[in-house]
Amino acid sequence: MAVHRIVVDVMLKPEILDPQGQAVANALPNLGYAPPVDLRIGRHVELALEAPDADAALEQATKIADTLLANPVIEDYAVRLA
Amino acid sequence: MAVHRIVVDVMLKPEILDPQGQAVANALPNLGYAPPVDLRIGRHVELALEAPDADAALEQATKIADTLLANPVIEDYAVRLA
Repeated sequence: MAVHRIVVDVMLKPEILDPQGQAVANALPNLGYAPPVDLRIGRHVELALEAPDADAALEQATKIADTLLANPVIEDYAVRLA
Repeated sequence: MAVHRIVVDVMLKPEILDPQGQAVANALPNLGYAPPVDLRIGRHVELALEAPDADAALEQATKIADTLLANPVIEDYAVRLA
């Protein structure tokens, strides 16, 4: 059993409004930056899991993402080795 | 001026406590998962910026990350092309 480091990125689905990202996008011109074409904010989760191999760790992380880290109704997630 | 897609990942510095990650880590055994070796939660920002080239877009995103997306006192950030 080795420790595998995995990253899960969780984002609101494209059709779901992102008020946090919109607030940051609206703040940029006030700080002297050009307005961004797009800006969305999600969660970045760094996990270290004990598993026999990388595939098993990815499978476990995907289950965790689906049940606990993301709300699959409104969010998409991507799981990858760090 | 082309549109460049950039990702900024913001994480609390390793020496800063992460109560949100700790709460998720503590919840996993209750859901039947092995306790994770480590679990930390940060922000994942997807930006689309107009810039003459990728280097200029990365430079602009780094300034935005430093002034608005991250608090450099307690957070680290990583900027990369999407």
